[in-house]
Amino acid sequence: MAEEPIRVGLMGLGTVGSGVVRLIEDHQNDLCHQTGQGVSIEKILVRDRQKERKVAVDPSLLTERPEEILKNDRIDLIVEVMGGIEPTRSYLREALENGKHVVTANKDLMALHGAELLSVAARKGCDVFYEASVAGGIPILRALAEGFSSDRITKMVGIVNGTTNYILTEMARKGTPFQSALARAQELGYAESDPTSDVEGMDAARKMAILATLGFHMDLSLDEVTVRGISGVTPEDLRFAAQLGYVLKLVGIAARNGEKVEVVVEPALLPQAHPLAAVDGVYNAVCVYGEAVGETMFYGPGAGAMPTATAVVSDLVTVVKNMRLGGNGRAIVAPYREKRVKGADEIFAKYFLRLRVEDEAGVLAKLTLIFAEAGVSLEKVLQEPGCSGDEAEIVLVTHTASRDRLDEVLLRMEELPAVRRIMSHYRVEGGE
Amino acid sequence: MAEEPIRVGLMGLGTVGSGVVRLIEDHQNDLCHQTGQGVSIEKILVRDRQKERKVAVDPSLLTERPEEILKNDRIDLIVEVMGGIEPTRSYLREALENGKHVVTANKDLMALHGAELLSVAARKGCDVFYEASVAGGIPILRALAEGFSSDRITKMVGIVNGTTNYILTEMARKGTPFQSALARAQELGYAESDPTSDVEGMDAARKMAILATLGFHMDLSLDEVTVRGISGVTPEDLRFAAQLGYVLKLVGIAARNGEKVEVVVEPALLPQAHPLAAVDGVYNAVCVYGEAVGETMFYGPGAGAMPTATAVVSDLVTVVKNMRLGGNGRAIVAPYREKRVKGADEIFAKYFLRLRVEDEAGVLAKLTLIFAEAGVSLEKVLQEPGCSGDEAEIVLVTHTASRDRLDEVLLRMEELPAVRRIMSHYRVEGGE
Repeated sequence: MAEEPIRVGLMGLGTVGSGVVRLIEDHQNDLCHQTGQGVSIEKILVRDRQKERKVAVDPSLLTERPEEILKNDRIDLIVEVMGGIEPTRSYLREALENGKHVVTANKDLMALHGAELLSVAARKGCDVFYEASVAGGIPILRALAEGFSSDRITKMVGIVNGTTNYILTEMARKGTPFQSALARAQELGYAESDPTSDVEGMDAARKMAILATLGFHMDLSLDEVTVRGISGVTPEDLRFAAQLGYVLKLVGIAARNGEKVEVVVEPALLPQAHPLAAVDGVYNAVCVYGEAVGETMFYGPGAGAMPTATAVVSDLVTVVKNMRLGGNGRAIVAPYREKRVKGADEIFAKYFLRLRVEDEAGVLAKLTLIFAEAGVSLEKVLQEPGCSGDEAEIVLVTHTASRDRLDEVLLRMEELPAVRRIMSHYRVEGGE
Repeated sequence: MAEEPIRVGLMGLGTVGSGVVRLIEDHQNDLCHQTGQGVSIEKILVRDRQKERKVAVDPSLLTERPEEILKNDRIDLIVEVMGGIEPTRSYLREALENGKHVVTANKDLMALHGAELLSVAARKGCDVFYEASVAGGIPILRALAEGFSSDRITKMVGIVNGTTNYILTEMARKGTPFQSALARAQELGYAESDPTSDVEGMDAARKMAILATLGFHMDLSLDEVTVRGISGVTPEDLRFAAQLGYVLKLVGIAARNGEKVEVVVEPALLPQAHPLAAVDGVYNAVCVYGEAVGETMFYGPGAGAMPTATAVVSDLVTVVKNMRLGGNGRAIVAPYREKRVKGADEIFAKYFLRLRVEDEAGVLAKLTLIFAEAGVSLEKVLQEPGCSGDEAEIVLVTHTASRDRLDEVLLRMEELPAVRRIMSHYRVEGGE
């Protein structure tokens, strides 16, 4: 190649950063063919220059001073894989202000400050790409932004957190309780020592906020996502779900009717024939529903150094192509659709409820009366003897009902003396 | 919008063409937001102007004279949904020579003459996009060209023909023979009155040639695809497959080790846990395996007017964006990797064989000796009484072996008097 290579400033050299270095080096020839230009890493920001690295890098590339990248005129493009909100946000703002394009894998940052960074980028004619921030190696953001650009997306349902999916898969397969499955995930490195963000659904919520903003062309912020994690899920829930033909997954749902929108992350039941039902272990998948296209699904590794690095370097290739065309910053379509977050009377779903009740005559009649009075009809009822002799376990699946009706049912059940405990309740997604 | 809209010449107004008209009209506002420009249809080439149409179009747009589109200076972009090889190829060549961009849904044309059209386009600085030609509404070509641009794709396994997948799904669910399932598919409009191209695998072969060329960056022609259809598949094959934990699907496999490549379309067995095993009915799906990303899958409707129209209009959006950037023709990456089609001694797989043999002592010993002498080891053996009293049915699944070894085994079995008939043999894909 006669031309000068594109010079990259890499911020972060952890597992994903090392993967990026490896891909750029190993695939130099392919990258040249795709972009017409070489790609070289000019500087790498690290916290500690002396630290031993898993990947062989020229030590002279390493720096602990961010300004060596941010103020470096030779650098065209920043790849940010250091994570965190601050100082990362300030760094990327500064980079964009200095006319440098940004590729990031940082879902926390994009979910919280994506709109801000994208608006600086649009003003400066810079690219910001963040494919790696959602569902690792699955090119889902590209599919939304380009593949379905002519369609109107009405719903996205995703398994976008590998840690919780691994835990739920373990629990379902082996009947192990949540805590042991979590411990196993931690042993295998699938869960962090503080697993709160994954387990309580915050990680998935960030990804859903990014997907919904991009897919619906609406300005959706993280605090508009309703979140519930999986720490309350029990092996009994999974067993009863299976008995009724369902699989329990932590799903993100972003749904839209006109300008009314709902974004939620919660454990939900999926019919066994649902495309997401077979997505097990640390894999991720996102179902996308469009008015014209109907149902589609994108499946792949949701995390891992090399899959994530693939997404990062593919974004980098797009930036380089845009640089050659002079088209940077044009891919950014600012949200243009009005939105209104749905109230509990506008969210419709089927629900699964599991109750422990006194094993005496007339209990089921009292329960079903509550449903009838709330205008909620039942699709499935399952009664089994409970653990202790005087108890029964009742599982109910409703037909489609509004969320506020369900809340009313739950409230009235709490007041019913024969109901010892509402063990669990979950949305049933799909299969309407 | 102050700017003039982009003017489109539409060639063909069948079901897909009508879908394109509908999408462009209904989504005008969204298209403006995405591209910064309106899109209007300037002329529509039809065979018969007087014919009744399913979609309301201004009759003055209709023309029976291709030159009104091809030589029309007001038209920037051709959308070709008329199908066929000639005169379509000449039309598109002429359009490109006249500097018009092309979006096409024509797999036959792209499989046979894609290289030619792309080279004219590259010379003239024009775009040619053909997402709709493979797997209808699934944005798989984009994923290959952009999402995995940084990775090296090693294998693609796809269910890329909805007609045959519907037939096999029917056969598996209801135990119906091929001919009745085909008749049912024809009744429902899923199969054409002459179903040869679908049923014998030619349609899938065209799509696999397109996928392999794009995904491997190799110049692969249609006659390098080995093809076998499903007309020989029996309900018994499906039943025995299910008994051994497999599902039978018509799959396209494109596999690459370095420059050695294999592209094949054939009925093959997939383990029930394979991501493609649950893809039923007219749906399509493609598994893509990359060195870095690992396993991914893309699933969605493989055909249908609106899904296909979505792919067409999304391509159109990309062309319009490129026009605004002045970047047309740059997306074309000419095949740059050397290739050599694998010989039978270089293709490795597991195989499933079903035989009808004389029900007498020592037959299994003779059979297994043949495998042993060919150096092929067995993973599973299943013997059942045959239909007539003196027969037995034997099903064998081998461990991984080269194709030429399997051919040797088949040849020697033919010569064995105790073997009455080799009922079927299939490759087993995945689950190694």
